[in-house]
Amino acid sequence: MIPKSGHWSETYAVRPGTRFSLKRCNPRAPGGFASREQARSQAAADAEAIDRLQDRLYAEGRHALLVVLQGIDCSGKDGTVRAVFNSCGPIGVRIAAFKAPTPDELAHDFLWRVHRACPPKGFIGIFNRSHYEDVLVAKVRQLASPKTIEQRYDQINAFEALLSASGTRILKFMLNISKQEQAERLRERIATPEKRWKFNPADLEDRKLWNDYMRAYEIAIRRCSTQHAPWHVIPADHNWVRNAIIARIVRETLEEMDPQYPKPKDWNPAKIRVV
Amino acid sequence: MIPKSGHWSETYAVRPGTRFSLKRCNPRAPGGFASREQARSQAAADAEAIDRLQDRLYAEGRHALLVVLQGIDCSGKDGTVRAVFNSCGPIGVRIAAFKAPTPDELAHDFLWRVHRACPPKGFIGIFNRSHYEDVLVAKVRQLASPKTIEQRYDQINAFEALLSASGTRILKFMLNISKQEQAERLRERIATPEKRWKFNPADLEDRKLWNDYMRAYEIAIRRCSTQHAPWHVIPADHNWVRNAIIARIVRETLEEMDPQYPKPKDWNPAKIRVV
Repeated sequence: MIPKSGHWSETYAVRPGTRFSLKRCNPRAPGGFASREQARSQAAADAEAIDRLQDRLYAEGRHALLVVLQGIDCSGKDGTVRAVFNSCGPIGVRIAAFKAPTPDELAHDFLWRVHRACPPKGFIGIFNRSHYEDVLVAKVRQLASPKTIEQRYDQINAFEALLSASGTRILKFMLNISKQEQAERLRERIATPEKRWKFNPADLEDRKLWNDYMRAYEIAIRRCSTQHAPWHVIPADHNWVRNAIIARIVRETLEEMDPQYPKPKDWNPAKIRVV
Repeated sequence: MIPKSGHWSETYAVRPGTRFSLKRCNPRAPGGFASREQARSQAAADAEAIDRLQDRLYAEGRHALLVVLQGIDCSGKDGTVRAVFNSCGPIGVRIAAFKAPTPDELAHDFLWRVHRACPPKGFIGIFNRSHYEDVLVAKVRQLASPKTIEQRYDQINAFEALLSASGTRILKFMLNISKQEQAERLRERIATPEKRWKFNPADLEDRKLWNDYMRAYEIAIRRCSTQHAPWHVIPADHNWVRNAIIARIVRETLEEMDPQYPKPKDWNPAKIRVV
């Protein structure tokens, strides 16, 4: 058990109703770790703890945890999943990756496909990108009218309030990398044959709109960091810092949820005989 | 790369059209391992290899792998997933656990819910139980008429042939434990507070029908082990033997599929500049 529950979450959570500024968040912050080894070993221990807590979450079957990962290209969403959730493995963790919506999805409201992908009780759900794309790329690329975008912040808050009231704990993480770090990662991606398939020349168009994206993130975080579904802005230039902070916040949250193994209701372990 | 490709699969696969007998399969077979440590370290290395191969499978995006896990209660389906597929993590692996069908599922043919759960190209899909329950529990508990059950073997073969022809490689594993081993695992489950929630007194009713289940497995394996979707009967009393054999067969199969990283089609890595 971590002694000071909630400490790490408080450090990185954006307090609701404050005038949050992304410029004050340093993407290269060392996160208080003495070395990358220390960060890695803490993250590994926390990932094991998350695995044990997930078993309890599943056994109890009363709550779900939804982890939203948002970040620009190369911000490390997949790497976060591997470092924090591979110990749990695929049994207890459900991932939904949101790409450009299909015609069928576009024929519904923007939260329809998201709602379908929410984790059932007992599970950890991870959104690799999410409904926030509908106020990020949709805003920057003008895929919806300003009035529609404006409505969406409240619609998102109402939707997340429904999930929260219905037993789903929500943690939202913005993986905050610097423009320089993205350039390095894109160059590495292009230079490495095994990574090249992840690159799309269109990604460079988004990079040109960097400031617009950051502005859109800032507004989304400001409008939609709530008590029941807080946004956390994570320094992500160093992947070991990013992983260790997220693993710790997820662990803290699960410990606070404190799921319990259920006791047998209609049978007595002392009286069962296996023959 | 494993030198003798296909060797392990051939050892445990049930040859199509043969009069397969479950009695000739020893659940406690040591699988040729010198020690449990050797089996565990081979399984761990193979799990890492599966992770790397899955990355290629995803990047190539042309094929899927479907792994069907069947076995009686306590046969170790979840443990197999953890040992063989946790290295891949939840990103590339999709699990479907089939329980008693819902009213909506029952309002469709028995393969409807199964088809929906099949892995898309680029993914490894795992069925924790499967459409085979419809010729196992359905047969033993007489949930369908003998005529209906009889039709299902051919329907399953046609369905799996469709998947196979459409780019999905299929591997089916029967986790073969002895009745004595199940008794020990059930007793441990009942005795351990953290495992007790997995136990249902109704499981003992199934245990009484052990011979009927084994007979149903034998028939299903005989009727549905095909060239394109072979059944493998895995000695599963020792979990290290079970994990090592399955990991090796999955690895061999992925190596035989030999997925390749795609080359960039419409852009030249040498000409891209990230600014």
